[in-house]
Order: sequence, then structure tokens, then C-alpha cells
Amino acid sequence: MSRLFVVGLGPGSQSQLTPEAQSALEGATDLVGYGPYVERVRVAPHVRRHGTDNRVEIDRARHALKMTLEGRQVVVVSGGDSGVFGMASAVFEAIENGPPAWRSIEVTVIPGVTAVLAAAARLGAPLGGDFCVISLSDNLKPWETVCRRLRLAAEAGFVIALYNARSKARPWQLGEAFDLLRQNVSGNVPVAFARAVGRPDERIILTDLESADPELVDMSTLVLIGCRLTRTIARADGGQWLYTSRKVEA
Amino acid sequence: MSRLFVVGLGPGSQSQLTPEAQSALEGATDLVGYGPYVERVRVAPHVRRHGTDNRVEIDRARHALKMTLEGRQVVVVSGGDSGVFGMASAVFEAIENGPPAWRSIEVTVIPGVTAVLAAAARLGAPLGGDFCVISLSDNLKPWETVCRRLRLAAEAGFVIALYNARSKARPWQLGEAFDLLRQNVSGNVPVAFARAVGRPDERIILTDLESADPELVDMSTLVLIGCRLTRTIARADGGQWLYTSRKVEA
Repeated sequence: MSRLFVVGLGPGSQSQLTPEAQSALEGATDLVGYGPYVERVRVAPHVRRHGTDNRVEIDRARHALKMTLEGRQVVVVSGGDSGVFGMASAVFEAIENGPPAWRSIEVTVIPGVTAVLAAAARLGAPLGGDFCVISLSDNLKPWETVCRRLRLAAEAGFVIALYNARSKARPWQLGEAFDLLRQNVSGNVPVAFARAVGRPDERIILTDLESADPELVDMSTLVLIGCRLTRTIARADGGQWLYTSRKVEA
Repeated sequence: MSRLFVVGLGPGSQSQLTPEAQSALEGATDLVGYGPYVERVRVAPHVRRHGTDNRVEIDRARHALKMTLEGRQVVVVSGGDSGVFGMASAVFEAIENGPPAWRSIEVTVIPGVTAVLAAAARLGAPLGGDFCVISLSDNLKPWETVCRRLRLAAEAGFVIALYNARSKARPWQLGEAFDLLRQNVSGNVPVAFARAVGRPDERIILTDLESADPELVDMSTLVLIGCRLTRTIARADGGQWLYTSRKVEA
């Protein structure tokens, strides 16, 4: 039976890649994914790398499914976890709208450490309570939907993790999101910008909602917005931990 | 400097444990955590295992911090990711309320594959859109808060992952949660019960909100409630994939 792997590469460091993911990668004849992820993978030189541009997820998924039926051992890769704003959903969307033969492919999705988990671990324990994960990109959903979700998430008291918070093509959305949240949450809730966690160019910024500056955020930055139970603890070395209390008072 | 590790063990299989987590475990002199997790860890026989009962997280954290300052190499373990309803938040809560010396400890939180990611990968790609993660336990927060969050999450159109969905001590809450959600979401949204994913006693049940039976859920079951964009795809082998479309129409 033809088998396709969809693998989450984790935050970037080899030490955060699960053995299960590593093993799937080692069996690949072909790697498919967004260019920088495909390049990052450590595999034998004969493995063919099909790195493509951003925003062509469905084409990429179709290409992977076609090669699978041709007998190639294809691994589709995403950063973090492929199920969280990664390639997994695109693969199933392609199958749903593709030829019936694609439904006979055994698709194995291998989970990974997604960005919000890596960022939270580096910061302390900001996900101690309930939380939500929102993509701020309005490429695939109306901006009004994003705004409505942010408002309801704030009202619910969720800690909010923002993926795809800002890019060159979407420069203004994050500022508008902060403005909107300031109307619904206290300005002193902690906000963290966690960039490229676990990679050499990692950068962590701790601020609060009132002062949060969208200009400090780029494509590789996970934005975390605390709730009223999120607070900082001063470390002896002058740094700070961020954590959210597990306990909600009545 | 004294160093304490807080490690997420992943869903259970050794193949889903990151090398970073494995390495921290191998350096331990003492393991601290909920009994079944502490027993699960593969380490040398001389390592002391301090497995305790459920619901004593703060005592456990204080014990770990004390041993760390006594010069032991302590690793606090949780299932999945320690930052998601695991031990990380309890450790920082203990530090916040403990002696100043605890703030000089270097606390390293090592992320893991949390239950919702493992479950989603096994099911297909149900987290294709925005989602939230809610603990259904009312041990640490009022039941009214849980209900309000469920209502707002449904209104937002989030896929909803429920941790601590049901236990012997909390037998009725999940049924009430389903009733509440049925007032806010169409009864035909898919619901999945993913029990012990990746372990020998794994069991996956796919149903819908209308038919969802709380009796099929136990302490080891992750409950996933889809949104209106979540659907099933028939596989050639008679099974089904579950996925959530990335695209939200205006």
C-alpha cells in the first residue's frame, strides 16, 4: 500500500525532533514542503528535496500525493506540528477534492512540538490555564472573523497564542489586533514575543499589552497574550519567568 | 548553579519523546511526578522515583525545589507537555510563594507533544483552523467559568479540545458540557474521543455532537469537538479521516 508521511519538524533544533519523525525522514525518497523547512532536514544526499514557495500548500500537497502513487516514499514536512497551521490540513483538502485513488493512500501524520509549546516552555508556564491558538493571517479567512475570535477569546479569559502574527505582506493586522484586545483586556496583562525559539537567532521580549509594539514582530515570532491570571516572577539573576496561575477564583 | 528540569514525556510511546527530554531524564538523580508518569520513564535503576498521587501538584513541586537546592538533579515529569495542564505552572506557583532562594534555581522547561497534537495527528488534521484547549476540571476553577468559556469558544467557531474531560470524581460535567454546546453548535459537528493515543490501549471513536456519549470517555481520553468547517473524508479501507478546512468563507 502507498504510504505518505506528514511530519512536524518541531521548533528547529534537532534535539526537539521526535525519533518517530526522524525515522520517517530517514525513509524518505522525496521531501516536500516550504523551502526553508525542506532545506533544514538532515537526510542522505540522494533524497530529492522539493522546496516550494509559501502559500502554495494545495499544489504542494497534490504533488506529494501524485508522487506517492508513483511509488515514491514521500514525506511532507512542516515546522512545529504539521496539524497546527501546517501542511496536514492541506493534504486532506487535496485528497477530498482529488481522484478516488488518493483515498487508498495510507496517510500517517506525525505530530511535533508546535511553536506555542516551545515558546511557553522558554518563558516559564504561561499556558497554565485554558488557552486558544489563532492564526492572524487573513489569507484564508476574513479579517472580521479574526477580530471576532480575538474579542470572544479575550472575553473568555483565554491566554491567546497568535501564529502568523505579522509578515511583510500583512504589516498592519497585529497593531489592529492589539488595539482591539486593549478594549477587552487590561493593558497590564503580560505579552511575550518569542522569536525563533531554540534556534541560534532566538529572541525573547517580555512586555505588556499597553506597550506591545508590533514592529518588534516578524514572520518567525510567536505572540503570546496573557490573561488576568498571567504574571511575572522576578528571578534572582534579574530575568523574569512568565506563568499563568492554574487557579481561577469564583 | 542548581538546575531543575520540568519535562513533558509526550503521549507515552518512547518514539514520541524528544532527544532533549530523553537527555534530561538520563541526567536525573530524582524523578518527581504523578505516579504512573514517574513509573513510565526509562532510566537507570539507581534513579529515585518520587511518584505521588494526583491533585498534590504544589506539594510535589515544593519537594522537587527543596531537593534541587540540596544538590540533587531533579526532573519533574508530566505526560504530554508539562506546560499544558501539567506540572510547569505548579512549579512556578511554588517558586512565587516559596523562599527567595528558589528564585536562584535555573528552571528548564522542556516541551513535549501534548495530547491534543497526538490525537489530532491520529485523526487526520482536525486542528486545521483556530482552536482552543480547555480543562473541563472544576477542581481549580468554578464550573460556571468552564461553561462560559465553552459557550464563547463555540460562538467563536473554535475547534475545542477538552482535557480532563471525565473522571470517577467528575462523572457528570462532560454530559452537561455537551448539552451546553448543542445549544450553540450544530449537532452534526464531528466529535472524536481519542483515548491513550500511541499506547497499546489506544481507542479512537468518531461520532458527532448529537450522539456523543460521555460514558465512552475516561481519564485518558482527549475529547475533540469540531466546528462547522470540520468534516470527515471516507478512506478507501472503510475508515475515515477527520479534518478542518483552513478556509473560512466570508
